[in-house]
Amino acid sequence: MGFNLGSELVRLGILATTSDHKSVVSINLFVTLLCGCIVIGHLLEESRWMNESITALAIGLCTGVVILLTTKGKSSHILVFSEDLFFIYLLPPIIFNAGFQVKKKQFFHNFMTITLFGAVGTLISFFVISVGANEFFRRMNIGLDIGDYLAVGAIFSATDSVCTLQILNQDETPLLYSLVFGEGVVNDATSVVLFNALQNFDLVHIDAVIILKFFGNFIYLFFSSTVLGAVSGLLSAYIIKTLYFGRHSTDREVAIMMLLAYLSYMLAELLNLSGILTVFFCGIVMSHYTWHNVTESSRITTKHAFATLSFIAETFLFLYVGMDVLDIEKWKFVSSSPGKSIGVSSIILGLVLVGRAAFVFPLSFLSNLTKKSQSEKLSFRKQVIIWWAGLMRGAVSIALAYNKFTRSGHTQLPGNAIMITSTITVVLFSTVVFGLMTKPLIRLLRPSSHKPLSSTCSEPTTPVSLFSSLLENSSLLENGRGADEQPIHRPTSLRMLLLKPTHTVHHYWRKFDDSFMRPVFGGRGFVPFVPGSPTERDGHGEG
Amino acid sequence: MGFNLGSELVRLGILATTSDHKSVVSINLFVTLLCGCIVIGHLLEESRWMNESITALAIGLCTGVVILLTTKGKSSHILVFSEDLFFIYLLPPIIFNAGFQVKKKQFFHNFMTITLFGAVGTLISFFVISVGANEFFRRMNIGLDIGDYLAVGAIFSATDSVCTLQILNQDETPLLYSLVFGEGVVNDATSVVLFNALQNFDLVHIDAVIILKFFGNFIYLFFSSTVLGAVSGLLSAYIIKTLYFGRHSTDREVAIMMLLAYLSYMLAELLNLSGILTVFFCGIVMSHYTWHNVTESSRITTKHAFATLSFIAETFLFLYVGMDVLDIEKWKFVSSSPGKSIGVSSIILGLVLVGRAAFVFPLSFLSNLTKKSQSEKLSFRKQVIIWWAGLMRGAVSIALAYNKFTRSGHTQLPGNAIMITSTITVVLFSTVVFGLMTKPLIRLLRPSSHKPLSSTCSEPTTPVSLFSSLLENSSLLENGRGADEQPIHRPTSLRMLLLKPTHTVHHYWRKFDDSFMRPVFGGRGFVPFVPGSPTERDGHGEG
Repeated sequence: MGFNLGSELVRLGILATTSDHKSVVSINLFVTLLCGCIVIGHLLEESRWMNESITALAIGLCTGVVILLTTKGKSSHILVFSEDLFFIYLLPPIIFNAGFQVKKKQFFHNFMTITLFGAVGTLISFFVISVGANEFFRRMNIGLDIGDYLAVGAIFSATDSVCTLQILNQDETPLLYSLVFGEGVVNDATSVVLFNALQNFDLVHIDAVIILKFFGNFIYLFFSSTVLGAVSGLLSAYIIKTLYFGRHSTDREVAIMMLLAYLSYMLAELLNLSGILTVFFCGIVMSHYTWHNVTESSRITTKHAFATLSFIAETFLFLYVGMDVLDIEKWKFVSSSPGKSIGVSSIILGLVLVGRAAFVFPLSFLSNLTKKSQSEKLSFRKQVIIWWAGLMRGAVSIALAYNKFTRSGHTQLPGNAIMITSTITVVLFSTVVFGLMTKPLIRLLRPSSHKPLSSTCSEPTTPVSLFSSLLENSSLLENGRGADEQPIHRPTSLRMLLLKPTHTVHHYWRKFDDSFMRPVFGGRGFVPFVPGSPTERDGHGEG
Repeated sequence: MGFNLGSELVRLGILATTSDHKSVVSINLFVTLLCGCIVIGHLLEESRWMNESITALAIGLCTGVVILLTTKGKSSHILVFSEDLFFIYLLPPIIFNAGFQVKKKQFFHNFMTITLFGAVGTLISFFVISVGANEFFRRMNIGLDIGDYLAVGAIFSATDSVCTLQILNQDETPLLYSLVFGEGVVNDATSVVLFNALQNFDLVHIDAVIILKFFGNFIYLFFSSTVLGAVSGLLSAYIIKTLYFGRHSTDREVAIMMLLAYLSYMLAELLNLSGILTVFFCGIVMSHYTWHNVTESSRITTKHAFATLSFIAETFLFLYVGMDVLDIEKWKFVSSSPGKSIGVSSIILGLVLVGRAAFVFPLSFLSNLTKKSQSEKLSFRKQVIIWWAGLMRGAVSIALAYNKFTRSGHTQLPGNAIMITSTITVVLFSTVVFGLMTKPLIRLLRPSSHKPLSSTCSEPTTPVSLFSSLLENSSLLENGRGADEQPIHRPTSLRMLLLKPTHTVHHYWRKFDDSFMRPVFGGRGFVPFVPGSPTERDGHGEG
């Protein structure tokens, strides 16, 4: 909300000085470009290669070129990239919406695997990239120290969850979607937490106590962030249920949901927790409780308004990154030693590929050991898709790199300039090349893993039958709740038997939810509401 | 969108320095207070005295006191008031939503009266206040010049349309609502345009040519702003109709509507037009065309999302003003000469009362001369309500005063400090005292103007029958459009006869709308849509 705009008092809109005029021009250009991205993205939707991120990146790049030409090489962007803008304004709506729209049953069903991939996997990737950077860059004499190498590890462990969201389809490939996407969120949080921890820790004297402290801190951040998010979500549910705003005003309900979601993020930042994790879990809790306590029109409004805000933020982000790429200042240093820069970028790309492979395949193997049914296990083809889908690097990497290697958006040291340009190169290359190859790759890999399940279904890698049976089962539980608290076990059904472990956990959660949570916080069925109405249920994507 | 956040690069959320910590604390406190305002506003809704503005002001004041005490008198606010924040972020959603939700038929029916009050009335008020200020303040030796007196006239001609919106009920008193509210919007635009014009014109050598130029400029701004708003609205309608986003994505439709509305405002600012007028007419055009071209869920979402954004912006604004009141720096100068400050505030309040009376009653008389039917004329009681409802001064006055009398939020000269504190005093006093008295006053004035029409209706000052007949008539036109292009004249109906002039204008507009506008830009009935569905029609408040 422009808290430091105040200190500048630009007097825009009343007294037109030169600087204001520039700001107004920037806003106009940016909003126009955003509209352009939306329209062009819509027109290109049919294309099998393009996605919205690449469109926005391309438009940003083109605009950068035009600005570079019109300003005669002085500048290529109209906004200096700021982590502030990114972390305070753009990231919260994206991550909140992700939590709000995620298929919760899927997510919690795969919770252990997601945490394994997102937290442990990111640590492995961080380790591999840091060691590799230390090994290679030391020889290249770039002028970085051990802290920089570790930072590089954290920066390039952050996958681009925004881009990942656009690659897979939640309805077509629910298992892969929930794994890749869930991993992306946990990964964002993990890498930011890692990066912060690295900034604060003394890196010269690394011993066992420090490493232990580091992990203790990491686990503390993880849990307290999650709890804060859940508490904020529950608070919103409680307020709306108690006051029952709906009787009076949809606007108040929507406003309180938006504000509390944002508050949870900012509160996490205030307490030095991970805002990303907090706002993600706040979104999940809000969609489970709060969303069911509000009026019908509030439900439709929140669902689409949050999605729209997230959509605008994403488009803005890619446009921004695209435009920032050509910033002349950064490339000045690189032009003196182009070989070194290309070398650094290639090494990082290689390390990213290796670092991701180093955890996806071993952790998938571990995850498969715990699964009893064949359909739940991750086949090698699926593992390849998971590996590939997380190769993209995006705005989080850029924001972290800017934080580490620049001062106020300017690059002083040659070593730092090379790191910045390499980050941009890696982000661009991975988003565009890997991004473009993802759609065809998934198409290529899907049909063969087809056979074991059925030969008529068009998306066979996804255990559709598995989840639809899970859904049936839980709705059975839900409907039978009043009459019989015990779930009906039918050992004759093979699928039911296979699902038993999850089933039991789910059963205990349901029991707790019904007997304690719902009476206090509302949730589905609180407001007079046609039970089992298919539009309602499918509308919010809870199945 | 934080265009100059970039240059500061606060590094919030990653590296916690002291300054960032302060920003995060500010945002947290502000969002918490906003939530508090919404909840308390909801609880106090039943109260006959309070309204949401006064609640937010009071909470802001209390917080200011608490901050003042905790910082030991150093500061009372967490955000420096910035016109930038106000004019770029808070005002556009409020005014756009006003245009989007306004009952269009009412508004255009009273268009001449509204323009008369809003434009001519504001000029009269400006003249009275400027002359009065010149007369009184010169004797008090405050140290202001002719330019300052004229600025004072412009500053205190700006009524608080936001506050006005909350006083009258659109459904209970449609005529008064549309007049007072419509006047408020035109008035905001007029006073800002006046203020800008004053800043640019040479005030030492005032002659006939300059005054003529001034008025020419004024009319040019007025018309070009309106046209720009209409064009932006039509553009959004055309884009959405041509591409038919709904087939693919509600989010895109909502995003393009939001972005184009904001773009229209910023474009007007870029071209030095009146953004307020532009975005208001953009809202009207969007609700007439674009809104009907989008999907059902987009309609619900836009309706409520725009209202929510406007609601949050309003609450933010009053909270902000309340918190800024106690700023210690401004009151330093006042404490040395309290009598002078009280005198200035009282004189301004008196001038505001006189200035408004000076145009409401004469212009109502003029307006009544053009009306033939008794029910359309403004009774004396209604004139009193119109006079009273426009006495409140709000954020526009404060923003203009800050622009004129401060540099970067700081007050140097004693004369300027007195003007700032007087502005705050007048705004607070008028909002709280006049605001609190408005509800009872309207209740007092309504029942007596009751008799001439009917004795059973509860809101008699409003020509309900008149407008319902107008509505019937136009829906008759609408339904009969396919069968018979000529409207059915029934001279036997007295009401129809009385309505004939408006009727004819409306008829030509309908004809133009049907034969040219709708085929190009869509509008009601474009998307497969149940005709005459009452929820749809009432839902958007078009009747």
